[in-house]
Amino acid sequence: MPRAVFDSTEYENRVERTKERMREEGLDALVVSDPSNMNYLSGYDGWSFYVHQAVVVTQNRDEPVWVGRGQDANGARATTWLDEESIRAYSDDHVHSPYDLHPMDFVGDVLTNLDVGGGRVGLEMDAYYFTAKSYTRLQENLPEATFEDATLLVNWLRIKKSEQELDYMREAARISEEAMVAGLDAIEEGVPEYEAAAAIYDALIQGTDDVGGDYPAIVPLMPSGDHTGTPHLTWSDREFEEGDPVLIELSGCRHRYHSPLARTTFVGDPPDEVQQTADVVVEGLEAALDAVEPGVTCEAVETAWRDVIQQYDIEKEDRIAYAMGLGYPPDWGEHTASMRPGDETVLEEDMTFHMIPGLWFDDFGVELSETFRVTNDGAEVLAEFPRELFTA
Amino acid sequence: MPRAVFDSTEYENRVERTKERMREEGLDALVVSDPSNMNYLSGYDGWSFYVHQAVVVTQNRDEPVWVGRGQDANGARATTWLDEESIRAYSDDHVHSPYDLHPMDFVGDVLTNLDVGGGRVGLEMDAYYFTAKSYTRLQENLPEATFEDATLLVNWLRIKKSEQELDYMREAARISEEAMVAGLDAIEEGVPEYEAAAAIYDALIQGTDDVGGDYPAIVPLMPSGDHTGTPHLTWSDREFEEGDPVLIELSGCRHRYHSPLARTTFVGDPPDEVQQTADVVVEGLEAALDAVEPGVTCEAVETAWRDVIQQYDIEKEDRIAYAMGLGYPPDWGEHTASMRPGDETVLEEDMTFHMIPGLWFDDFGVELSETFRVTNDGAEVLAEFPRELFTA
Repeated sequence: MPRAVFDSTEYENRVERTKERMREEGLDALVVSDPSNMNYLSGYDGWSFYVHQAVVVTQNRDEPVWVGRGQDANGARATTWLDEESIRAYSDDHVHSPYDLHPMDFVGDVLTNLDVGGGRVGLEMDAYYFTAKSYTRLQENLPEATFEDATLLVNWLRIKKSEQELDYMREAARISEEAMVAGLDAIEEGVPEYEAAAAIYDALIQGTDDVGGDYPAIVPLMPSGDHTGTPHLTWSDREFEEGDPVLIELSGCRHRYHSPLARTTFVGDPPDEVQQTADVVVEGLEAALDAVEPGVTCEAVETAWRDVIQQYDIEKEDRIAYAMGLGYPPDWGEHTASMRPGDETVLEEDMTFHMIPGLWFDDFGVELSETFRVTNDGAEVLAEFPRELFTA
Repeated sequence: MPRAVFDSTEYENRVERTKERMREEGLDALVVSDPSNMNYLSGYDGWSFYVHQAVVVTQNRDEPVWVGRGQDANGARATTWLDEESIRAYSDDHVHSPYDLHPMDFVGDVLTNLDVGGGRVGLEMDAYYFTAKSYTRLQENLPEATFEDATLLVNWLRIKKSEQELDYMREAARISEEAMVAGLDAIEEGVPEYEAAAAIYDALIQGTDDVGGDYPAIVPLMPSGDHTGTPHLTWSDREFEEGDPVLIELSGCRHRYHSPLARTTFVGDPPDEVQQTADVVVEGLEAALDAVEPGVTCEAVETAWRDVIQQYDIEKEDRIAYAMGLGYPPDWGEHTASMRPGDETVLEEDMTFHMIPGLWFDDFGVELSETFRVTNDGAEVLAEFPRELFTA
């Protein structure tokens, strides 16, 4: 009994657009391994991506085929829009197998069974869960097939969001706001980092008065003190101390759709250097948001940020924004457009990005971020949250 | 300033054992991409595995080399035992790059720089984050190298735990107990699933009176009602109803070490069928635990479970246990030994497993689990939690 997240027409439309792109690339089949792309096309939603699985799209068939582990087939029945004959499960001896069996052997059989085993088959060569071994096993199993790299084919279709997708992202933004308040409230001198993380998690999963929260594709990141010189450390047993900057990056999640939000707080009175850095980040962030509109390139938006920080003699090579939305661990990013030099992606209405300019030095860092939708003439920032350096 | 989780002698010992196995396999270098294996050898701990990274072990060098993204190099300085010259970072234009740059181009350069670019290089071909593209790019970059599949080389070294590792797992077990109590207390008719999930998360991250909790490698799994026919669905907005079975699988985590625990509860009075199934699972679980001792094979332990359920005319093909401990999303399993037919791994003292026999039928399921250490004459179950079907 599927608990529908989208009308089946929305899924059918996604599959149709995928097949159109496949025709342009001359592909008979596409093996989709990225769990976000699997969800996008089929609705499948389970924590089973620690074993190999796939959604297979073929030109000769209306519905894609879900392929996964036997014990997860009921999960596919519960969460996808697919008919029974589109759900194909492999036996448990394929899992971390000592028998020289690999799930891609079964996927190879499915492709053969769908009459595309000797065709042109697109693979997501650089997707997280499509391992080198998955590739070599498919090659061994389908010697007649021609494999093409189709890594971001589905990802690029995801960049523009539907009304329903945007509604989920807006719900996620409400959750992000509540979780950020919970985190800022919890941080003070003498409190261990994990207590702040627990408060954030509680708010992320409790959700709002209207809707519950799902697990985010990235855990709340919360480097503090000398750890703020790097953005991806998580919490520890350490207690916050006076003089600590604390970076908080988090995201609410609804039906796997995110709206990330980052802010920086300081335990005690921030020194001028930290306050000034925060002011630069806010000024640069706002300049970049002001530059957003349809027809503008991603690199042009980054230039607006770069122009601001150069006035303060700061250089920074990292990208400042990336397309995002639907996601599973380890990432809510879509891996398509980024706002940085050389990225000539032209903005269109209903694309969504997380803009997270940060300045990370060796001894401290400051970051502030916003998630936004490209509107017909600017940017709709999804969360409402003051843009300032907080103090605890 | 590293915040040490283990003495550097423990890391040195791990690297020495890795190099010994590499010598047996005739490897000059090993590219370790699995974040758990990276942590095991270097201590590196950050949520940065959504970009390509590696720890490279070579025979000609005492320390391994950490390779990752520029903005994460300070994370490596903060969490590893490695000297500055063992930390090598690539520029941000390698990340989800539109410039035909790939992080594995940089890893290739590092291997060349370490004088092993033309040697025998072991790769974790089936590790989650070692994609097909990572492999083909390394092949292109190092035409003189010979690549060997070394997927589980480090994983197998992890199966026996040190005293310090066991202490962390025992701390994780205390957290698992508290989180399970929180979950069971929260579940009742009319409560939405996400509220129970939030209560579990709060307990997982708050930890115990003594220690804080880290994020688990797998989110709390909590299928309910007709979703209990499959083990890997997460919570939703649905409210618990009278007549729902609810499966809870969760794990506390300390310094990335886990001690998973699963129990089943029933909203209202369980029908005889559900109670009897639970009784069979408990009887089978205890028979299998009784079979554990050094010298016994994994498949022999599974036979003890199978003998019990066959008395009740039940057949089940899934494995009942797997080696585990250190882990990052998407899995806390080590992917080495499993308790199932054909796995002839011989148990040794200080190996650790999660035993999770479950019976999942089309309309309901029951699971109960224990994490245990193999002692000199039996099994030390890490959590203390009643083995019964709970009711809410």
